[in-house]
This record gives sequence, structure tokens and C-alpha cells, in this order.
Amino acid sequence: MTLLEEARQGKVTEEIERVAALEHVDSEWLRNRVASGKVVIPANRHRRLEKICGIGAGLKTKVNANIGSSPFNPCPEAEERKLRVAEDAGADTVMDLSTGGDLNEMRQHVARTTRIPLGTVPIYQYMVDYKNSCKPDLGNLMLEYLDQHGKDGVDFVTVHCGVTRQAIESIEEERLTGIVSRGGAFLARWMREMNEENPLYSRFDEVCDVLAQHEMTLSLGDGLRSGCIHDANDRAMIHEMLTLGALARRARAKGVQVMIEGPGHMAVNQIEANVRLQKQVCDGAPYYVLGPLVTDIAPGYDHITSAIGGTLAAIAGADYLCYVTPAEHLRLPTLEDVRNGVIASRIAAHAADIVKGIAGASEWDDQMSKARKSFKWEDMFALAIDPETARAMRKESGLSQDEMCTMCGDYCSMRQGTQTARKN
Amino acid sequence: MTLLEEARQGKVTEEIERVAALEHVDSEWLRNRVASGKVVIPANRHRRLEKICGIGAGLKTKVNANIGSSPFNPCPEAEERKLRVAEDAGADTVMDLSTGGDLNEMRQHVARTTRIPLGTVPIYQYMVDYKNSCKPDLGNLMLEYLDQHGKDGVDFVTVHCGVTRQAIESIEEERLTGIVSRGGAFLARWMREMNEENPLYSRFDEVCDVLAQHEMTLSLGDGLRSGCIHDANDRAMIHEMLTLGALARRARAKGVQVMIEGPGHMAVNQIEANVRLQKQVCDGAPYYVLGPLVTDIAPGYDHITSAIGGTLAAIAGADYLCYVTPAEHLRLPTLEDVRNGVIASRIAAHAADIVKGIAGASEWDDQMSKARKSFKWEDMFALAIDPETARAMRKESGLSQDEMCTMCGDYCSMRQGTQTARKN
Repeated sequence: MTLLEEARQGKVTEEIERVAALEHVDSEWLRNRVASGKVVIPANRHRRLEKICGIGAGLKTKVNANIGSSPFNPCPEAEERKLRVAEDAGADTVMDLSTGGDLNEMRQHVARTTRIPLGTVPIYQYMVDYKNSCKPDLGNLMLEYLDQHGKDGVDFVTVHCGVTRQAIESIEEERLTGIVSRGGAFLARWMREMNEENPLYSRFDEVCDVLAQHEMTLSLGDGLRSGCIHDANDRAMIHEMLTLGALARRARAKGVQVMIEGPGHMAVNQIEANVRLQKQVCDGAPYYVLGPLVTDIAPGYDHITSAIGGTLAAIAGADYLCYVTPAEHLRLPTLEDVRNGVIASRIAAHAADIVKGIAGASEWDDQMSKARKSFKWEDMFALAIDPETARAMRKESGLSQDEMCTMCGDYCSMRQGTQTARKN
Repeated sequence: MTLLEEARQGKVTEEIERVAALEHVDSEWLRNRVASGKVVIPANRHRRLEKICGIGAGLKTKVNANIGSSPFNPCPEAEERKLRVAEDAGADTVMDLSTGGDLNEMRQHVARTTRIPLGTVPIYQYMVDYKNSCKPDLGNLMLEYLDQHGKDGVDFVTVHCGVTRQAIESIEEERLTGIVSRGGAFLARWMREMNEENPLYSRFDEVCDVLAQHEMTLSLGDGLRSGCIHDANDRAMIHEMLTLGALARRARAKGVQVMIEGPGHMAVNQIEANVRLQKQVCDGAPYYVLGPLVTDIAPGYDHITSAIGGTLAAIAGADYLCYVTPAEHLRLPTLEDVRNGVIASRIAAHAADIVKGIAGASEWDDQMSKARKSFKWEDMFALAIDPETARAMRKESGLSQDEMCTMCGDYCSMRQGTQTARKN
């Protein structure tokens, strides 16, 4: 039996207990959410997670960090360092998106060593193994890759099942940036070269069977997400979303936990509509968004364009934010980029959690504000989303702990307030 | 006659012509906006601005950068370098908030050398000259300082006229962080020590007379802005806003252009209400917001918390964003902090301008998207909000200009799309 099937039969599994304790929610309430598909708990049955993670409505907004080698940088050690940085910065999950070097070794190593849920995009392995060429037996190969990833302990997999022939019909003509998902773009090429339907769509039940066997959560990839604000919420994107909603029902019927992936680049005034539509047509399935990046013109700062969009998406109902680093559109991220990306996404998630009314969210802010008012610098550092950076920046000013900061010195407004309070 | 009076009499002044040309709007439409007080053009009559700037509904969202020495860092050269960085990064205006060293020299030097409108907070000069002590003749001294700043060529001044005895009555008891505006906190202390009303409120007409004489725009300071999300939109804040709205009418009646300052720290779900209320009770006066910072827990990253809030505020109707740097709450900003602050605010302003439908806004994004799709790296750098950073990050990857980036290499989705397009 899968976790979803157990929950549906009324069983509060160990995974549900652990997530309920972490989130300070009632375990029976959570069981119900899992049973209905509104919350997923990615947890491969072949390994035990040190830090389990529930994703969905009513829980804290989660943050994913992507790591992984690329053909130009096939260095597993570098990626392992990024994994540690991402974990230390507070990422809730990690995806290994390697496309360079020995992919099996990399993934197995990450699965052995990471404390948090691990996701992959198995079609990348096909693309690497077959040098980007279109083999007729893509469907069988993909089922084998999925099985291998399941055996290796992967907790969730992105599969682009909604990139159908109908959805991509006129996409290259209508869009400024066409298809920008690597898997989606490859599948579109495969379908055109083979003149066949996407096997991940036509053989969806088989995909689900493999996932159920290993208790892998299905992340239905948005292969047709918008790569620029011009293309956001266009017919191809919404067509794919409708397909993903229908497939999500089928996955759940087969006992597979499922979440839906979303954009991408999107102007602020398109975000709420996109998220509300996803929640409606996917029966409340958890929504996992990349960004959204609210403008295209800020390469070098796309952790910020994404933090803006991520906040709004999460407030509208998105449950899970995939980080974007400052290096997006420019190069593979460095360690520093990874840290900046995780922190920016965590800021977005938290700013939204305040609005969502998540337990403990605004209390965190209030604790910081009290520490600030009473000049308790050590408390401020401990409460900061990135204590190390806050401490280092303060230290650069060369002041000791009991003094004001170099911004205002004696003219500190908080001290004026204290003087007033003392006087009265 | 002041610019506002001329506009009201139907005259399209040179300043209005210049702003209309920059913004690609009709000059008669703009004259009307200026006449009604919905747009201001800060431009001291004693100097000619190299880069003039209109602020208000229907125009591009503007960005201000603060520079200025502090008691711990009274180095005018360091602040001058920040001014250059802020201008080069694209700040529309600059405020000299110096509280260390020779304030007159600093301000006069900035006024002589800056290309963009200059603002100041004259009460800081009082606080420095009189070592934070409460003198009975504060009102007269402030009128003298305002006159001096006007003669020096300052284009707009923040004056905290709305910090009244009634507004601050119970503020220290109700708030977590009390009063966090330096000027506001000082005035509150002065009122309590003197047991008198704020002279900037009680002698408001005299304040306006001095400003009109030099054609300085009045920025009605929000001395009671929220310093943490707990305190946002509380009674003190809204009380002050109502006062500022009433004072704005009186200022306009005396021929003084006026804008209103706003928060501060504020959770996302409070921002729209705040901005819409400001527009209503201040007769559509331009709204100049600091942040808003959407969470208190991210010292070291408050350019990001502010970019999130600034985007939402601007979409709701705010016209002018005061930057916040990563150093906020920790220390005086460095050059790098200034650049990061300006760029983050410009991202927020632009993300909002797309939604506001400002001429040229989404077209900028579309140009970038076309350049991206066709791998025109030089065009992408030229179009980037910070060309230097984008170019440097790309360069670090060591690839030449005609290649993919190190993120995906051969698996680049945009290239897959091109391959498909070529095939079909």
C-alpha cells in the first residue's frame, strides 16, 4: 500500500505523525489532507528521511533548491558543496538536476547523504545517455529510469506528462521564447521527429505504477511554462494545466501522491489568476512554482524577481517555491548564488506565511521586533533568516554589542523612544 | 509664482515640457496632473536639473536613493562616491541624510554636483547642531534651516508636520517598536519635554511660505510609520495620514507641490489598503514609500523584503519608492549596498510599471526575451537592468559569446526549440 492509500483508509502513518508534529497541526486533520491529495509527503519507501517535509494547503510554504552538474561543469564535489550550502541555508527539499558526469553516481551519493527529500528529472538522464537524440523506445527507457531512481531512494520526480501534441501545436509561432523547459523542449522535438504522442502521456498508468512501487511522489512538470512575461498564461500553458489536472486524478486513483508544477516568467497581475486556476482544475493539488519571475530584464538579480513573484504566488495559494539564483539565465550557480537563492525564496515563503496565517509565522517577526527595540543584538542575529550574514554585516561596522548601529548613531529613533518612555 | 500656480493658470512650463518628453506623455495632460496635485516635479528655482523627474499617477514609478554621513562615518568623500554609484545605477532622485561632519558643506557639494533632484530632511541638521537637545525655539530654527536648504538648491524636503500630540498619545504603549522615524521620534520627545504642539504642524503656513519662495516640493514625512509588521496600519499611522491629507490641501492652496510619505514595515496583505487609503484621503497626492518591508526577520536582505513590498505598493498606486539597502538595521551602507539597493528598487518599480501599463515597460521585457531567444548576448547585456553585473557573471563562466550558458550547455531548451523550428 502507498502512503496515500493508507491515509485514505484512515491510517495516520508515521510520516503523517512526523509532519504533523513539525507543523504543529492535528495529525487527523493532516491525514485527511493527504487522503484528499491536498497535501503530499514525498518519502521514498527505501530510505528514511532525517528531515521529512509535507507540502500543501495549511502547511508552511516550502522551498526547493536545485543543484546538479552541467556538461561544462561535471564536478560532483562542487555540487555536493552546493547541497550542503542549500541545506544549511534552510532549503526544505533539493533536486539533483545533473546533466554532466556520472549521473547515477551523483544521484546515489546525494540520496545517501542528504537530510532532506530529494527530487530528480529522469528525462535528463535519457537526454545525457542518448546524447539528445530521439530514440523510438523513449517510453520504455523512461520507465526504466524511473524505476532506477525509485530504487536509489529518490522521493519525488518531475515527469512532463502534459506536453501533448495538441498543447504544442502552435506554440513556436505564438510565443516569444517558445518552450523553455529542458524536458518539455526535448519531448516536443521527440514528438515531432517521431510523429507520435508523448509516451509519458500515452503510457501514464505505467508511469504511476512504477512510482507507486517505490512510493515516489509525482511532480507533474510544466514543460510548457512561460519563459518570458509575454508568454505567461497563454493557451499552451493553460492547456497543459488542464491536462495535468486530469492526470493528477488518475495518479491519485492509482495511489500516487501528486503535485503540479507552475511557471516561470509572469507579470504580477497574472499570478493570482494562474494559482487560483491551478487549485481549481487540479482539485487543490499542491502547487510547486518556479519563481514566478515578474520581469525578464534583470539577469543577475533573478532571485529578487522570483522572490517578488513567489510571495504573491504563495499568498494566492502556491505551496512550494523552487528557488531561482542570481545566476539564472547567465551560468551555473556558485555556492554564494545557491545561498542567496535559498534565502530569497525563504523570505518569499515567510512573507506569504504571515498572510496565510501559518502558526508561528508573524510571531517570528514579533520576536525580532522586540529584540530590535531592546537592542539585543545576539537575539537579533539568532532570529535572523541568515544569522551569519547579519552578524558579519554588523561586525563590519566595528561597533561593540551594546551600541547603536552606524546608520544613525546617537540619533537612533529607537533610543529616542526609550528616552521618552523613561521620562514619562 | 510657483510651478503649481503656473500649471493651475494653464501654463505648460519648461519643467512640464521636459518631463512630458521624458515620459512620452502629452504635456497638456501632464500640466493638468500637476495643477491638480497628482503629479509633482521637484525642481528648486535656484538651480537647473540635468535630469528632471516627475512623480505621480500615470508616470513611471520612481526610485530614490539615500546617501549621507553618520556620526560614526563622517566622510564626505565616501558619501560622494555613493552618490555617483546611485546615479549610475539609475536612481531618479537622491536624498542627503547626513548627520555627521559639516552638513552645510556636504549638502552644498551634493547640490552642485548631482545630476538628479536632491532631497533633505532639515530636522536632522537641527538635531546635529543642537546635539539632540530640545530648544524652545525649534519652530524658528526649522524655518531658518528650510530657508537655507532652499537657497542651497534642495529640490524637496521631508518635514514631519503630521506628528501631532494627539497622534502620539498612546503610541509607545500600543506598539512593539514605537516611533522609528528619526525626525518623528525627536519631535515626539520635543513635544513631551516642552508640553507643546509640534511647531511644524502649528506653524504649517509659515513652512509652506518658505518652500514656495524657493520652489521646494514638500514631502510630508510619516514620522509615525510602522517599524515592524505588528505596528502597520495602526491608529497612530492612520491618524497621521489623515493629518497629512489635510495639510496637503493647505500646501497646494499656498502654491506648494506636495507628496506624502508612507511606510515602513508592513505585511503584504496590509499594503493595498494603505496605498488606496492614502490616495483617497490625500486627494491623489503622489505617494512616496519606504519599502514597505514585508517581514522583519531578514536583516542583511532588506533590499529584497522591500522589493517585494515596493512592487505591491506601486501596483496599488504608490508613485515613488525609497530604496532600502541590504545594510538596513545593521550599519551604514557600502557602495555595493547602495548599488544593490537601487537595483532592487528599480526591479520593483519596473515590475509594477508593467502592471500599471506605463509606456515602454513591457516592451523592454519583450526586447530582452527576443534577444534571449536568439542568443544575442551583447543585446541581453545592453538591455539588462544592470549590464555590468550581467556581463561579469556571464564572463565568469568562461564561455565565448556565441555559445549556450553553463547552466544547460547542449541541453539548452531554447536551442531545442530552434532545432524544432528548423526541422518544421
